Amino acid sequence: MFESAEIGHTIDDATYDAQVPALREALLEAQFELKEQGRFPVLVLISGIEGAGKGETVKLLNEWMDPRLIEVSTFDQPTDEELARPPAWRYWRKLPPKGRTGIFFGTWYSQMLQARIGGRIDDARLDQAIDIAGRLERMLSDEGALIFKFWFHLSKKRMKERLKALNDDPLHSWRLSSLDWQQSKTYDKFVRHGERVLRRTNRDFAPWYVIEGTDANYRSLSVGRILLEGLQAALKREGAARSSPHAAPLVSSLDNRALLDALDMTQTLDKADYQAQLLVEQARLAGLMRDKRMRQHALLAVFEGNDAAGKGGAIRRVTGALDPRQYRIVPVASPTDEELAQPYLWRFWRHIPARGKFTIFDRSWYGRVLVERVEGLCSEVDWLRSYGEINDFEEELTGAGVVVVKFWLAIDQQTQLERFKAREATPFKRFKITEEDWRNRDKWDAYCDAVGDMVDRTSTEIAPWTLVEANDKYFARVKILRTLNEALERAFRG
Amino acid sequence: MFESAEIGHTIDDATYDAQVPALREALLEAQFELKEQGRFPVLVLISGIEGAGKGETVKLLNEWMDPRLIEVSTFDQPTDEELARPPAWRYWRKLPPKGRTGIFFGTWYSQMLQARIGGRIDDARLDQAIDIAGRLERMLSDEGALIFKFWFHLSKKRMKERLKALNDDPLHSWRLSSLDWQQSKTYDKFVRHGERVLRRTNRDFAPWYVIEGTDANYRSLSVGRILLEGLQAALKREGAARSSPHAAPLVSSLDNRALLDALDMTQTLDKADYQAQLLVEQARLAGLMRDKRMRQHALLAVFEGNDAAGKGGAIRRVTGALDPRQYRIVPVASPTDEELAQPYLWRFWRHIPARGKFTIFDRSWYGRVLVERVEGLCSEVDWLRSYGEINDFEEELTGAGVVVVKFWLAIDQQTQLERFKAREATPFKRFKITEEDWRNRDKWDAYCDAVGDMVDRTSTEIAPWTLVEANDKYFARVKILRTLNEALERAFRG
Repeated sequence: MFESAEIGHTIDDATYDAQVPALREALLEAQFELKEQGRFPVLVLISGIEGAGKGETVKLLNEWMDPRLIEVSTFDQPTDEELARPPAWRYWRKLPPKGRTGIFFGTWYSQMLQARIGGRIDDARLDQAIDIAGRLERMLSDEGALIFKFWFHLSKKRMKERLKALNDDPLHSWRLSSLDWQQSKTYDKFVRHGERVLRRTNRDFAPWYVIEGTDANYRSLSVGRILLEGLQAALKREGAARSSPHAAPLVSSLDNRALLDALDMTQTLDKADYQAQLLVEQARLAGLMRDKRMRQHALLAVFEGNDAAGKGGAIRRVTGALDPRQYRIVPVASPTDEELAQPYLWRFWRHIPARGKFTIFDRSWYGRVLVERVEGLCSEVDWLRSYGEINDFEEELTGAGVVVVKFWLAIDQQTQLERFKAREATPFKRFKITEEDWRNRDKWDAYCDAVGDMVDRTSTEIAPWTLVEANDKYFARVKILRTLNEALERAFRG
Repeated sequence: MFESAEIGHTIDDATYDAQVPALREALLEAQFELKEQGRFPVLVLISGIEGAGKGETVKLLNEWMDPRLIEVSTFDQPTDEELARPPAWRYWRKLPPKGRTGIFFGTWYSQMLQARIGGRIDDARLDQAIDIAGRLERMLSDEGALIFKFWFHLSKKRMKERLKALNDDPLHSWRLSSLDWQQSKTYDKFVRHGERVLRRTNRDFAPWYVIEGTDANYRSLSVGRILLEGLQAALKREGAARSSPHAAPLVSSLDNRALLDALDMTQTLDKADYQAQLLVEQARLAGLMRDKRMRQHALLAVFEGNDAAGKGGAIRRVTGALDPRQYRIVPVASPTDEELAQPYLWRFWRHIPARGKFTIFDRSWYGRVLVERVEGLCSEVDWLRSYGEINDFEEELTGAGVVVVKFWLAIDQQTQLERFKAREATPFKRFKITEEDWRNRDKWDAYCDAVGDMVDRTSTEIAPWTLVEANDKYFARVKILRTLNEALERAFRG
């Protein structure tokens, strides 16, 4: 893998000086076109051997190109806000928006390699990390990102020579130190594990470029050319020409019985029972949130459901006994323009709770496979793809101790009709009913299909869906609270 | 000040139960109207005596109102990301956007009172903190925010009774502990200093409401009523009817000589000198950025100037010798919709550098008194007001160790014309020149006036303007680098 990066590539100064001006000019033009189109972001990942010119190259790119359109992020020690959330959160918060370029130093590849070399993880865990990285990059690419991965390489002999010449740079001190690097063993391990990582993460949509770092002229021109060609090609490509995945078609149920039809919608709870049980479950939740074990977890609840199914009322009962400083409700409406400039899941990542906290999503990332699918607001390719991305997303959350609980509040058509009419008649509930609600009602069957597919494809062991029979609000609220409590208790038992 | 909050107000349950439903309904309606208008945010500050029902009241408000439109923020221990920035940064990042309500627990008032009671600051420093708080609230109010400040009070006797009844709540443990509170001295100090704080921060635009906390019915109804009446009044008020400040009119220069005319625009540097001096100053800056003393400081540079004055080129020379991981360039363009939903300075606060870092603003908050003033993009009231707000802002930055350096790059009309023409002729510089640039040129005199007023009103000892004679790019770049270096060295000397 690294053979051709050890053969001593060089470019003489005359050739270099002759080529740079045109390259710079073309890079600037491409960068400007990228901004004008505002169609996709560029993500450049920087990895490789210490002393192979990573920092110098990034510095040079900032000189050649317009640094106002580039943001360089270093992922060294996580901050405490980052440590309180799933590992990927820190990358998501630094993603470049459409039209701009983000350069990531010390990315997921550095983290996994250092962990492997330091012996903190074994090969199996390394493969898991590789898999997660692959999924993340695939998702970013599907969302339009242009990804370059550069690996700066040096032969062992060259590295030792270079390190001798370098002073210890305090900016690098968090990484493997120069001292570490001067041990042959470290180099050997880094190259061996690095080879495995590169091999398994070299994809058409996010290829690795191995750059020999010995000669600055060669290194700089190579990187500049690769960026330029990749950028120019992507800028010419039409947005519409995106390859569609070979998604398995959704199969309708053979016996025409849908998941939602199987619910027993007649379940009820009388008022006295409701009031008694509600108090019990609210107190139980408040107790669990104060439990010491909660410091290792966060709680995340997703509320989806038919219009007028009682999401708002249920959420108020959930938070009823909680300290408002511990929870946060995120009502999901149309995305802001900053959110539109990012991958779909970005707007949800930014609200992921820190450990010890509870976030309630009033509607959620499932909008993509519900309203956006039914209303045709996004392409079939996009919503089909999102089932898998959502499962990956929730796996990252649960893997970091976030307890994910998802509710679909189901009512039948007759109940919905009655509630719509009642709302129209009540002054302070009028705002709850809109033209759109009546229109959605006409698409009842389409929504049923969408819900069925959603549950089939995203109800996982780690983040199962709970279907809530919500014709009776009392029954629904108690079931929701009880489900949350059981999920937390299960998590606490480990 | 607290007399009427010690007389034992109570409301019996029957009265309470009779009044709550209508109050809730009206609050919900007002909250919905607030969201629909999307014209201003509501900020509720919660302070007062321990055990006086602060937490309970906020909890109740979340039950009464729609909690999806309320965000509760607690300011206990700052995170390390917050500690690395000026103290106000953590409040800015939690401000509610227009149409929503933010409830702040443990605000600036709690911080200053605890510092005073703990003896960490004296009365003079307390007065400074009071002054800063007053300016912040004034600015928020001028930007449209509706501010409620609640002080929950208890007589000493009542407090002791209540604290006995309360279990120690782990959520509160970061504050003065219950144990502290049980000492009479603490109560006395809190009330004495609290009285001073309330007296000096009770303003028409951000009044204090002292609430007796003994009786839950009284407390809840009082707070609910105050919020409702304030909200309803603000919702009825027309946006246009804002009071205009008595801003001193801007005085034209008597002898018709403007600041910019006084510059010696003939200064130049020949290429050899430029190259030599540039290298020296770049190395000096790189060295200063690596200096250990930089850990106590951040560097912030503002670049403003005539179109085609060479801001971009100058910025590239400034960053030329720096590690891209240490600096960040923020190009200021039109605000995003998330930024438009916040006070004017919010979009700049979010980019304030952490300690050890360097942020370059390519155009800045001065847009308000330059382009927005000249083009009539904001009202005279708003831009007149912003001089003072900007000075307050920069004072907060410098007070926290941020070194603020501001450049106006000045060229004369003839030079600008030549550069415009040259740009139009150069393919990869075409994007630098637009119709707008030609239009701005027609307003040359208006911009000169605006620059003069800006410098007169915002060139302060702590954050002076540097006027850069930029007809000669070499001269300008070296002057800029040298100014930055001198500012850092001055800061390091202390």
